[in-house]
Amino acid sequence: VTEPGPWWGWGSGGERDPLSPEAIAMLVELVGEATPSPAVALDDVSLPDPAPLPDSIVRAVGAGNVLTAKRDRVRHAAGMSYPDLVRLRSGRLEDAPDAVVVPRDREAVVVLLDACAREAVAVVPFGGGTSVVGGVDPAREQFQRLVSVNLSSLRAASVDRRSLTARLGPGLTGPEAERELAAHGVTLGHFPQSFERATIGGFAAARSAGQASSGYGRFDSLVTRARLDAPAGELRTRETPHTAAGPSLREVILGSEGTLGVITEVDVQVRRAPETRQYEGWIAPDFESGAEIVRRLAQEDALPDVIRVSDRTETRVSLGVSGTGGVARRALDAYLALRGRSDGCVVIAGWEGEREAVARRRALGRRVLRGGGAVALGARPGRAWYEGRYRGPRLRDELLDLGYMVETLETAHTWSRLQELYGAVRDAIAGALAGAGSAGLVFCHLSHAYRDGASLYFTWLAPVPPGEEIERWRAVKRAACDAIVAAGGTITHHHGVGRDHVSYMRDEVTDLGVEALRAVKERLDPSGIMNPGKLLPA
Amino acid sequence: VTEPGPWWGWGSGGERDPLSPEAIAMLVELVGEATPSPAVALDDVSLPDPAPLPDSIVRAVGAGNVLTAKRDRVRHAAGMSYPDLVRLRSGRLEDAPDAVVVPRDREAVVVLLDACAREAVAVVPFGGGTSVVGGVDPAREQFQRLVSVNLSSLRAASVDRRSLTARLGPGLTGPEAERELAAHGVTLGHFPQSFERATIGGFAAARSAGQASSGYGRFDSLVTRARLDAPAGELRTRETPHTAAGPSLREVILGSEGTLGVITEVDVQVRRAPETRQYEGWIAPDFESGAEIVRRLAQEDALPDVIRVSDRTETRVSLGVSGTGGVARRALDAYLALRGRSDGCVVIAGWEGEREAVARRRALGRRVLRGGGAVALGARPGRAWYEGRYRGPRLRDELLDLGYMVETLETAHTWSRLQELYGAVRDAIAGALAGAGSAGLVFCHLSHAYRDGASLYFTWLAPVPPGEEIERWRAVKRAACDAIVAAGGTITHHHGVGRDHVSYMRDEVTDLGVEALRAVKERLDPSGIMNPGKLLPA
Repeated sequence: VTEPGPWWGWGSGGERDPLSPEAIAMLVELVGEATPSPAVALDDVSLPDPAPLPDSIVRAVGAGNVLTAKRDRVRHAAGMSYPDLVRLRSGRLEDAPDAVVVPRDREAVVVLLDACAREAVAVVPFGGGTSVVGGVDPAREQFQRLVSVNLSSLRAASVDRRSLTARLGPGLTGPEAERELAAHGVTLGHFPQSFERATIGGFAAARSAGQASSGYGRFDSLVTRARLDAPAGELRTRETPHTAAGPSLREVILGSEGTLGVITEVDVQVRRAPETRQYEGWIAPDFESGAEIVRRLAQEDALPDVIRVSDRTETRVSLGVSGTGGVARRALDAYLALRGRSDGCVVIAGWEGEREAVARRRALGRRVLRGGGAVALGARPGRAWYEGRYRGPRLRDELLDLGYMVETLETAHTWSRLQELYGAVRDAIAGALAGAGSAGLVFCHLSHAYRDGASLYFTWLAPVPPGEEIERWRAVKRAACDAIVAAGGTITHHHGVGRDHVSYMRDEVTDLGVEALRAVKERLDPSGIMNPGKLLPA
Repeated sequence: VTEPGPWWGWGSGGERDPLSPEAIAMLVELVGEATPSPAVALDDVSLPDPAPLPDSIVRAVGAGNVLTAKRDRVRHAAGMSYPDLVRLRSGRLEDAPDAVVVPRDREAVVVLLDACAREAVAVVPFGGGTSVVGGVDPAREQFQRLVSVNLSSLRAASVDRRSLTARLGPGLTGPEAERELAAHGVTLGHFPQSFERATIGGFAAARSAGQASSGYGRFDSLVTRARLDAPAGELRTRETPHTAAGPSLREVILGSEGTLGVITEVDVQVRRAPETRQYEGWIAPDFESGAEIVRRLAQEDALPDVIRVSDRTETRVSLGVSGTGGVARRALDAYLALRGRSDGCVVIAGWEGEREAVARRRALGRRVLRGGGAVALGARPGRAWYEGRYRGPRLRDELLDLGYMVETLETAHTWSRLQELYGAVRDAIAGALAGAGSAGLVFCHLSHAYRDGASLYFTWLAPVPPGEEIERWRAVKRAACDAIVAAGGTITHHHGVGRDHVSYMRDEVTDLGVEALRAVKERLDPSGIMNPGKLLPA
């Protein structure tokens, strides 16, 4: 098992990514000072002793592939949600897996699941561990023993250049998959913020969406075939661009979040590697008119591959965090004032592909942007966004160090109800922060666009007194989720359900929907060992 | 219940659509003479007496909405597959529903299903009755009583012009839905050959694909939300352009073919009504190079809205059936000889939308067509195809009258394996026809295109001795399906499973997949009354 980062957070090969002094000053000005709250030392993390595992489980993967060192157990004890990170950094982990097991191939997964089912050992499938909804937490529920199954050895890859598809193992990380594909001149085009650490299996299990998904398609829309190894056996769909043979079991495997079995193989559509990438910034008059521009782009088949619109607060914060200061910032301010867009909202638009197609599509897109009242800022903000696109999780580490709570959540709705949803969720988060006595900040961007609607991606940020992190987080999270449900939005556009959204599943799919999913689970995982406590309400 | 056509077949408001003398001459030359085999009179159809229905069922829909007249029972005793039509026309119906019940609204459906579950009355949901895989056959299995539930009263429609979505009742036929949408300036763009009679509910339940689905999207890809009323209650998904909240239950409702419950409402994406439609014909050097052109169109984002490539036999037959004869035909032959395309394959390409977008996309598409060696035939063959696009089912009536067996089936695969699949299925059908002593004809077109592959639509045609229709059909059908499975194709791209493909479901989704679907069925329909004998193998 390689070490993608520090045990207590995201990191990047051990490097830190500190906020600039200007950014910290802005933060203090906006939400006040906080009490620095660095991660404890690994030695100071206390863990329950691991329960010993049955021999059959050790035999399934081989003794050398059963890891029980503290560092391994801690690294697999949480994902990357705010409460996960707080538990890690504070050393107050309630639990950790008894062991991390590393099956070397699919056959070992099959034998392992069989052994775990016989011995009543709970199984948490683990890819990159980047779930932000508690999806890899070691929730034992009724089980005495629990293992985290690290899938990083399942990294096979093959490409069908003619059909533009690839067959990928679940353990490939984003960069590993792209390296394999690049050797064949193709790309998956799937670039979520978790790209550097998340895996193919996780993208499929949690229905990931990437920053360029308006163009390349969400991960689930790229999957053409999937194989799930469940305790009850193998479930495999056929290799075909489409089938009308009944309900889609591929669409049941996708989003199953480890609760039905382990996804051991997926076929995905790929594209030729782009000849060119062109990203640029625009300023729309306000968030609503920015969203209206995106609606027109989507409905007129003129969507760029990346399109995002920040609301006013996010626009202000992102200009601050990007470190644009001094002369450049004054010039930008003067330009925007001149064009009547001082209070405007940043739009990032990006096109990728063959030169000629990009030129054609970009001309179309720019026409719609201008028609909607947006003013071009040129390539520089586009490049800045592109270069910083994986920086979010590292910035979060820094903010947690400084003693701030920072969390994100996302939802989606039709165009007709998007602004209502936006206002309701923003106000709910702001209200909950104020109610807890925090001078918090909430901001949002429109993150993925469709012909019929779009997703909204919210971030909130507030100083939090040490020790009160989880309680405050819970109050804000609940207010936001309740507002989403009341406004008719979906509880998650691409983060998944995990543990944090379980109680909203009945709103999402009705009681009978939950029962239908439970019926599938009982058939595929009769002893209920697969990722307990996730996805399905009891 | 309105009468969309004759009880024994498709028809069109009672009008017939006879083959031209030239077409009949060609047919005789190609496959030989057959023994005319007209439909018997309705009086000569023998049916078992209907079992009386429990009062609770009559009360659920109202006495006036329970139809037991012979004509109604016969009309709901079969769909439109070849064996269905043979059974109807010959008067040798094995069975018919005990009654046709017509719930006037969704509430009546709910009460009805509850009553049927309590009384162990099997339920066959019935939309347009156009299934070509036995999907509406009154298969009683273990039940003594069976009703066909005609959903033609559930015809609500509303449009969200801003989100470009519509909420539609399952009983709307294709033309009815398009009329409702046209009043708001939008279209569904879903034009399967069954358009004139099939319904929204049927499109959803059987995952219909239309002739323009390469452009507008298959019906299932247009559905954004669905409501299913099952015997165990209501299952409803949320109105959203996308959700990551677990496995997709929308994709479980889609394709459920009436076996889980009644689809009582769907939300679909719509598009602005096209300003212009431009259809044209081309001749590709051969089927393989024609398919290669479509692959390039799909992978270079240059797909027309309609694209189809006929193989050599279909090209020859369609030129014959369209009645292009005499001077026009000789001129065409001379032109093709001059361009070296005498043995070529017809390609139909159609673009729909705003004038400017159509001009731009058509220019792109034509460049790829020419680059692939296709020669333009101009707008005339395009118009002819467009005007005759719903003629197939009526021609089939005529061919059955003349004593010919005619049947279609479809499959799909990735581009890498499409030609192998094509050859295998064509040879299997031809071999089975020859084995039965028929001088049969088999032909094919590529019907729907994707970035990763395409569907193949086969037709076969042969004289058949009266009385041997079903047996011969079964032999050919089995040979074709076995060849599809062996070549790794899907058993159905858009016709569905129904009764005819049940035995191939294990190949399609594995044993565990069948069990997963059965688990869902048992939860939603505990007494197993919904459309027995369809979709799931015992």
